[in-house]
Amino acid sequence: MYLSQCVNRAAQINPNGFATIFGERKFTWTEFKDRIARLAQGLKGLGVETEDRVAILSMNSDRYLEYFFSVPWAGGMVVPVNIRLAPPEILFTLNDSETKVLVIDDTFAAMLPALKGKMETVTHIVFAGDGETPEGCINYEDLIKNNEPAADAERQGDDIAGLFYTGGTTGRSKGVMLTHTNLLTNTLNIIPASQIDEEVTYLHAAPMFHLADCASTFAITLAGGTHSFIPKFDPEDTLKTLVADKVTNCLLVPTMINMLINFPGIEKYDLSNFKRIMYGASPMPEAVLLKAMELLPNCLFSQGYGMTETAPLITFLEPKFHTMDGPYAGRLKSAGRAGVATELKIADENDNEVPRGEVGEVLARGPNVMKGYWKMEELTKETLRGGWMHTGDMAYMDEDGFIYIVDRSKDMIISGGENVYSTETENAIYQHSDVMECAVIGIPHKDWGEMVHAVVVLHEGKKLTEDELKKHCAELIAGYKCPRSISFQDEPLPVSGAGKILKTELRKPFWDSKGKGVN
Amino acid sequence: MYLSQCVNRAAQINPNGFATIFGERKFTWTEFKDRIARLAQGLKGLGVETEDRVAILSMNSDRYLEYFFSVPWAGGMVVPVNIRLAPPEILFTLNDSETKVLVIDDTFAAMLPALKGKMETVTHIVFAGDGETPEGCINYEDLIKNNEPAADAERQGDDIAGLFYTGGTTGRSKGVMLTHTNLLTNTLNIIPASQIDEEVTYLHAAPMFHLADCASTFAITLAGGTHSFIPKFDPEDTLKTLVADKVTNCLLVPTMINMLINFPGIEKYDLSNFKRIMYGASPMPEAVLLKAMELLPNCLFSQGYGMTETAPLITFLEPKFHTMDGPYAGRLKSAGRAGVATELKIADENDNEVPRGEVGEVLARGPNVMKGYWKMEELTKETLRGGWMHTGDMAYMDEDGFIYIVDRSKDMIISGGENVYSTETENAIYQHSDVMECAVIGIPHKDWGEMVHAVVVLHEGKKLTEDELKKHCAELIAGYKCPRSISFQDEPLPVSGAGKILKTELRKPFWDSKGKGVN
Repeated sequence: MYLSQCVNRAAQINPNGFATIFGERKFTWTEFKDRIARLAQGLKGLGVETEDRVAILSMNSDRYLEYFFSVPWAGGMVVPVNIRLAPPEILFTLNDSETKVLVIDDTFAAMLPALKGKMETVTHIVFAGDGETPEGCINYEDLIKNNEPAADAERQGDDIAGLFYTGGTTGRSKGVMLTHTNLLTNTLNIIPASQIDEEVTYLHAAPMFHLADCASTFAITLAGGTHSFIPKFDPEDTLKTLVADKVTNCLLVPTMINMLINFPGIEKYDLSNFKRIMYGASPMPEAVLLKAMELLPNCLFSQGYGMTETAPLITFLEPKFHTMDGPYAGRLKSAGRAGVATELKIADENDNEVPRGEVGEVLARGPNVMKGYWKMEELTKETLRGGWMHTGDMAYMDEDGFIYIVDRSKDMIISGGENVYSTETENAIYQHSDVMECAVIGIPHKDWGEMVHAVVVLHEGKKLTEDELKKHCAELIAGYKCPRSISFQDEPLPVSGAGKILKTELRKPFWDSKGKGVN
Repeated sequence: MYLSQCVNRAAQINPNGFATIFGERKFTWTEFKDRIARLAQGLKGLGVETEDRVAILSMNSDRYLEYFFSVPWAGGMVVPVNIRLAPPEILFTLNDSETKVLVIDDTFAAMLPALKGKMETVTHIVFAGDGETPEGCINYEDLIKNNEPAADAERQGDDIAGLFYTGGTTGRSKGVMLTHTNLLTNTLNIIPASQIDEEVTYLHAAPMFHLADCASTFAITLAGGTHSFIPKFDPEDTLKTLVADKVTNCLLVPTMINMLINFPGIEKYDLSNFKRIMYGASPMPEAVLLKAMELLPNCLFSQGYGMTETAPLITFLEPKFHTMDGPYAGRLKSAGRAGVATELKIADENDNEVPRGEVGEVLARGPNVMKGYWKMEELTKETLRGGWMHTGDMAYMDEDGFIYIVDRSKDMIISGGENVYSTETENAIYQHSDVMECAVIGIPHKDWGEMVHAVVVLHEGKKLTEDELKKHCAELIAGYKCPRSISFQDEPLPVSGAGKILKTELRKPFWDSKGKGVN
């Protein structure tokens, strides 16, 4: 299987349906296929040969989608760059991947002076924005206009489709090598779970460089559905586009859902076409989910859990389990069950499966598991030892195969010998109606090693004291899991490009003064 | 991917749900997994080693399903033998596949004397029936009882899972080598198309040796659903089991659907749980389909088209297209669109795609396409030339990617230079309410080469003349497509083990006297 077959199938079954809607700009699948084949020829004209890397640094747009398909069509590999990175980090990505051609949009054209002269391997820059083409750049539409359609390179199977650099919330960013089979297998996992067909219109609201959004990118295409875009997530822009483009499906990360449902006036938008929200990429506080389900009663919710290394999804929690009543109730805290094409086990440190109900590491196996980390053979061997992807996440599995992520392993707080999984504490805090956002971290403590600390943002106008919130938690969870200290702040919590709360940022002030402690 | 992961997933997500229901005998997925692992150990004890063939000759049963999974668990290859074959044909299958162990049931124990001494490679016979174990045979339940569970051999990917001998309605039977990936890819095609999940109870009514039924066998297992069985198709037994086992899904071939809807008293059965019929394996006359839709209004119908060589499904016509009104109407004559994991094109004799609407050969490509024909390298090369499976079926594709099978290429009648696709003529004949069954064939004609002939079975008590039926057809289709001669008969049309009408049988009396003609 290969990525181009997504476009071929869309053009076969829905040739006159819209492939992309970006504001007023619309292309059918027949036009889309023609455009990417011409763009591929254009890229080849710039010297792109088999396995050459073509990076993109851009906000969401229809051209971002064309990029995803034209690069493999030309025989190359995609490198979607995290849009939140600072110039030195972007340079690391481009140089580490040995990128030959870089595609940028209006937003990132401004960053070019900071990059120029330091990109070691880039020979050409393609400008895919709508403004004036910067000096020294090649115009994207010219590449399409001035070239005949290329024949598809038909790269496939275990050929690498792209390097997807991981978020880098900890340590140095790693280039995850995902093959054509990896990404196609994910489409076969997500299509039944999200019931994606040619009638779906999917809004790219989460950043397109990230696998959370990419989970649907290839599936929507293979199904012959329609892609809609907003440059970046913004609650108002999202709501307007949901209405204007008659969007049916969307992936939103929990922080986005939280912002959306707290947006004043959401009830004024006609969201009758909006049928499915997939959420994932970070733990979803149950209270936020329940509020979203209440505010959007016509929407089916489903959860996907995974990571870049698994292209990305491992488990799914289907819509029927998003209920508080009846035989499907009681699973809301779960990340769901293994997708049909992926094997899953919860294992101890020797990779032996642990009994149901016991916490262990999440291991995954199957054709969606990455080929490895780019130029990091040792780490690849270690991560994929025994043929299983070692996710580093801790979870337990119940009697019916549902897993419950207790925490990203590096996020676990060990306080006085007790393991505290921060999501549990966060879930308790979120159940207080005054709380808008929160994150729980471990901070240094001279006696306990670590201590449970919460950073909280309240809804506007609310006044809640540390003692009140501690008392609230004590009613819900065991004492050792309750926050020992709480800091309140007015500004939103820092998030990564993918919308994950950056706990490393929150930890810094405490751990920079390590030894002094805060207690 | 590998077949055992179907069982592993079922036991993971539905450990206490029923795997199999066969009359009063029921096993959960936990029990099923234990049984097949023990049976695998038993087979190894009989000398089954990696890639050894283990054949089965049996009516449908829960043990047939256990066989499908225990053989690859032991590292072997399955060889499901066509139950309609005569002893010399069975011997050909066993000897051509070099089968080491043969599994038989009560029905076929009676055939043992005719086989013994002529099976060149069989060393052991396992008796999987419920009666007395025949002399010289090993009891199936003893193999389970007397062995500890084996570790899974984890044969996978391109390893051959089994040899599936094609129906052999023409020419010598060929062993189709299907790999683990082939069969698993089919599950990923059919799961979204038939919305198979752990809540499905599927009735094996069509013979389990045939890929038409096998199309669901592995998918139901991977989804953790429940299997129900009847030894062989019979309308009354089917209806009773649909009720007793609360069956939700079933695969039926068109002749079976025709028999079911003509069964007196069908309306007395409570079929409220019965939700989905997949049909396929041979063309479905539209009139039969319409009657079935009317009689079973709570049932969703979907069509699958494919063949053994494609493991088996290539295209799907989803339930929403089974309607006479609204935007989805007008597709009932279609076999549907390419499954998500399979590429499809309609091509000329040089494998170039023909324009939409033009008839050409159906070609398929993807991980569901067979590894090849067993010990037939030349035929394999020819059939898979250019990387595409050449199906031999003729079809056209409409603007929206739906294909319309005009005929199995060998079934096309060329009469006076005009191509007549027999399904078109059959569809016209079936629209006469007196007609119970029909088949259209080409018979020799001195001027036209071939002439269109129909063999017709009327409903009981109906009297329809040749002229009346010809006139009926002339009102529906072009003159050259109408039958020039019609023979009426009382006995049902001859069918293959898979329920396909055996046109070769019908042709024989005419072609045996070739030269004389009938006109």
